[in-house]
Amino acid sequence: MTLTALETPALLLDRTRLERNLERMRAHVHGLGAVLRPHVKTAKSIDVARRALAGEPGGITVSTLKEAEYFAAQGIRDILYAVGIAPAKFAHVIELTRQGVELKVIVDNLAVARALAGAAQQARVTVPVLIELDVDGHRSGVAPEAPLLIAIGKVLNDSAGVELRGVLTHAGGSYDLRGAAAIADMAERERRGTVQAAERLRAAGCAVPIVSVGSTPTATFARDLTGVTEVRVGVYMFQDLVMAGIGVCSVEDIALSVLVSVIGHQPERGWIITDGGWMALSRDRGTERHDVDQGYGLVCDVSGRPLRDDLIVATTNQEHGVLTRRDRGAIDLARFPVGTLLRVLPNHACATAAAHTHYHVVDGESPEVVARWERFGGW
Amino acid sequence: MTLTALETPALLLDRTRLERNLERMRAHVHGLGAVLRPHVKTAKSIDVARRALAGEPGGITVSTLKEAEYFAAQGIRDILYAVGIAPAKFAHVIELTRQGVELKVIVDNLAVARALAGAAQQARVTVPVLIELDVDGHRSGVAPEAPLLIAIGKVLNDSAGVELRGVLTHAGGSYDLRGAAAIADMAERERRGTVQAAERLRAAGCAVPIVSVGSTPTATFARDLTGVTEVRVGVYMFQDLVMAGIGVCSVEDIALSVLVSVIGHQPERGWIITDGGWMALSRDRGTERHDVDQGYGLVCDVSGRPLRDDLIVATTNQEHGVLTRRDRGAIDLARFPVGTLLRVLPNHACATAAAHTHYHVVDGESPEVVARWERFGGW
Repeated sequence: MTLTALETPALLLDRTRLERNLERMRAHVHGLGAVLRPHVKTAKSIDVARRALAGEPGGITVSTLKEAEYFAAQGIRDILYAVGIAPAKFAHVIELTRQGVELKVIVDNLAVARALAGAAQQARVTVPVLIELDVDGHRSGVAPEAPLLIAIGKVLNDSAGVELRGVLTHAGGSYDLRGAAAIADMAERERRGTVQAAERLRAAGCAVPIVSVGSTPTATFARDLTGVTEVRVGVYMFQDLVMAGIGVCSVEDIALSVLVSVIGHQPERGWIITDGGWMALSRDRGTERHDVDQGYGLVCDVSGRPLRDDLIVATTNQEHGVLTRRDRGAIDLARFPVGTLLRVLPNHACATAAAHTHYHVVDGESPEVVARWERFGGW
Repeated sequence: MTLTALETPALLLDRTRLERNLERMRAHVHGLGAVLRPHVKTAKSIDVARRALAGEPGGITVSTLKEAEYFAAQGIRDILYAVGIAPAKFAHVIELTRQGVELKVIVDNLAVARALAGAAQQARVTVPVLIELDVDGHRSGVAPEAPLLIAIGKVLNDSAGVELRGVLTHAGGSYDLRGAAAIADMAERERRGTVQAAERLRAAGCAVPIVSVGSTPTATFARDLTGVTEVRVGVYMFQDLVMAGIGVCSVEDIALSVLVSVIGHQPERGWIITDGGWMALSRDRGTERHDVDQGYGLVCDVSGRPLRDDLIVATTNQEHGVLTRRDRGAIDLARFPVGTLLRVLPNHACATAAAHTHYHVVDGESPEVVARWERFGGW
């Protein structure tokens, strides 16, 4: 099957670029003495996860228990659920633990640490737990230097039902930085805070086998991972315009795109109308405050090369995209007749992929669709 | 089952509010002498569509051929696909037509009108077609006064394979207006332009049985629908903060919400952290430029009443929401311990619902979950 046989909008995944992105990150992290625990929240696909896991001894990271459920059923048994666990999810965690899944959860407060220990003890299971750290004021987590860290460590260490396995952080603040130097500094802050927390816990008598850090930007520019055991990354598999905008990748590394059709024009306004609206591209405007605002996405020809016209998806409705030149200059509309196929590169791979039920897999600029990989959403 | 048994985040639909929204729009439009052709793009659910269709003689409006396929299989045979048809979709339209579905498509240019006629003629089917109009410079469509309108009408009227059925417009520009008076003026512009186009086509010898208008704002405030045969609306079923912000409904009319759990706090920053991030709420920031910016959603207690603290979802990550007071003032965090359930009202119902695979149906403030209604996404 070729691209012309697809009904648009359709999600495309370039396998060549995917493999290159996987290999580059793997080599970099291995070179620094750590291993990858790929985050499957971006791809939500067993086909992608298997490729990301190749050559890694550890398991995966998930963002929902539905992901944990799905990937466990596919045979991946070492799973880290990297969102603070809440009491309403204890029963589900216990159920997966009983099934033999090594499901690690994270906590950043005493109330949940104690409640989880109680629930697990009552269910006669032991749940492995990591303590979530906050190194950049970004969202959840305990400060590495806080007395609370040791208090949580002691609860986890001393209670039946739970077992302290390590510490974890995600330097999500790195998404707001620009360029290698600033992000490398953040990577060192992420490493230092996490290792510091591990050492404080060890000094207090706790075993801390896992020291887990991760974000695609910090992992890309980290120069030293001393003391870190694993790196969690997800977006690096596909990359996107936000990553390109902050210097983490080039536009040519982006493996994900949305195939759209031209469905009309508004000649007086210089608009090309396509069937790729925000439902297919997502509402994510992550490049809005970047030096280069990509609108709702950068427009490429059907083979994936950015058009010389420098077209972006300027505005969207649910199932309509309006393409203009970035500089709002005139377009030769005759070059884009109704039915023309175009590829749109996404601002944010996680959000764009989430709108679709499957990937049409392509290889570079070839028009052949070589596979269909399923993905899922929801909770 | 009660709300406390759900794993969060979970999509809730208040049946009481849904029925009231449906009945209000039905009474208003019938009172003006037209009927509804409900747009199922918001709900993508047969349970909701059946309720919206009750008492309406006509069919539904869809935004994708997947919706057409699904609702046809559920027994709804009169379907209007309200996105300009592109050549790559002809085969699918022809297939549905052969199955006996009355699938109406829309065109706004000669190239597609001619190509569709050719393809349908070759397949020995007749596809019913409406001409899409542009009354507000919003996206696609032919101006009602343009010579092109008559040229397309003649192609559709004179060609085998297609049959001209009417004219259609969507005054999407109404979303950018504020208040009843401005939107009522837009409703009249929508009506006048559409009726004018129908009359021009009739004067040119074309039959124009369907005169179709619609957007939730214009339908809500229309005072006169003379010459209009049907009104297409979708968001009115659920309503949302964007509709409340422009005066179309009140916050108490919003039938859709996302149930989230408190998973932690950052006391020094006055933050409550929940498990409802942008994946569950959507990236839609439709109230960003409104008088009242609702962030990523307005926070209610578990029964659906806005909190007296005036909390909004200030920032989001994929699976995390950060709640603050709108005025960034201090919150009594002890009132929101870990595990607290909250409901978040969405900016944009279409986008938020799209992130979920089903609705948990509730009735007003009762904690009982009375039903589960499936929904779908993708293309």
